[in-house]
Amino acid sequence: MERYKRVLLAVDLTEECRRVALRAKNIAQDSSAELHIVHVIEPLSLAYGGDIPMDLSSVQDQIHEQAKSHLAEFAKSIDVPADRQHLVFGRPESEIHRIADEDEMDLVVVGSHGRHGLALLLGSTANGVLHGATTDVLAVRVGPDFSPDD
Amino acid sequence: MERYKRVLLAVDLTEECRRVALRAKNIAQDSSAELHIVHVIEPLSLAYGGDIPMDLSSVQDQIHEQAKSHLAEFAKSIDVPADRQHLVFGRPESEIHRIADEDEMDLVVVGSHGRHGLALLLGSTANGVLHGATTDVLAVRVGPDFSPDD
Repeated sequence: MERYKRVLLAVDLTEECRRVALRAKNIAQDSSAELHIVHVIEPLSLAYGGDIPMDLSSVQDQIHEQAKSHLAEFAKSIDVPADRQHLVFGRPESEIHRIADEDEMDLVVVGSHGRHGLALLLGSTANGVLHGATTDVLAVRVGPDFSPDD
Repeated sequence: MERYKRVLLAVDLTEECRRVALRAKNIAQDSSAELHIVHVIEPLSLAYGGDIPMDLSSVQDQIHEQAKSHLAEFAKSIDVPADRQHLVFGRPESEIHRIADEDEMDLVVVGSHGRHGLALLLGSTANGVLHGATTDVLAVRVGPDFSPDD
């Protein structure tokens, strides 16, 4: 069986995703695979349910610029070059699936919260990514109720 | 970050789980981790909703014996020794979580079907395992709509 060739790491750019990133990096290295990284910005229109007011449009630009710089910084810390950084707008699950398909990834790595705290919200991204994925999916356990020494 | 130390491969003993097993084996080898294997037999009482008729009790014994021999054979093919083979009765998600907790696994590897055919049924095991897991979970894509050459 062939090893993974292209690994897509999906990050929310919080402090917790460092653990997820290190798992992804280890597996990519062990498999001699390309490591890509994606961050999905959920458009304000999804939250506002329609047209974005003028003043929110500039907020969205700011969010994009900030995310771009955070993503570049984070990617650099795990040696992912610029042409393997993907910054996109949309629904996380759909965009992660789209990039995984288009760029022929064979493994997607996401953070997964347990059942506590933000679990219901964030756990659903991992579930959403798992559901309907055409790739393998590695859900890396993160969250305030998780101790890395466990 | 430390590598995985104990990897638990959950199998349904169908032909498809060979692909899942090979992924688990690769990761365990790369991480110098112990590879364990679990097969969960769902008791007939879960299907029959209560007491098992006398004649089904012997059927259950047969199922157990058959599963034990299939598991041993499968485990041998991927070099998992007898003391790392777990054959249990119960609900797959609960039993996989229990063994993962008790034996301090840090990665569970399961097969995951896509959205077609048996997906709704079998996909839910992967979802169930993901949900509430205290370990990382690798869902390996399998199923009739999946071509390994994709």
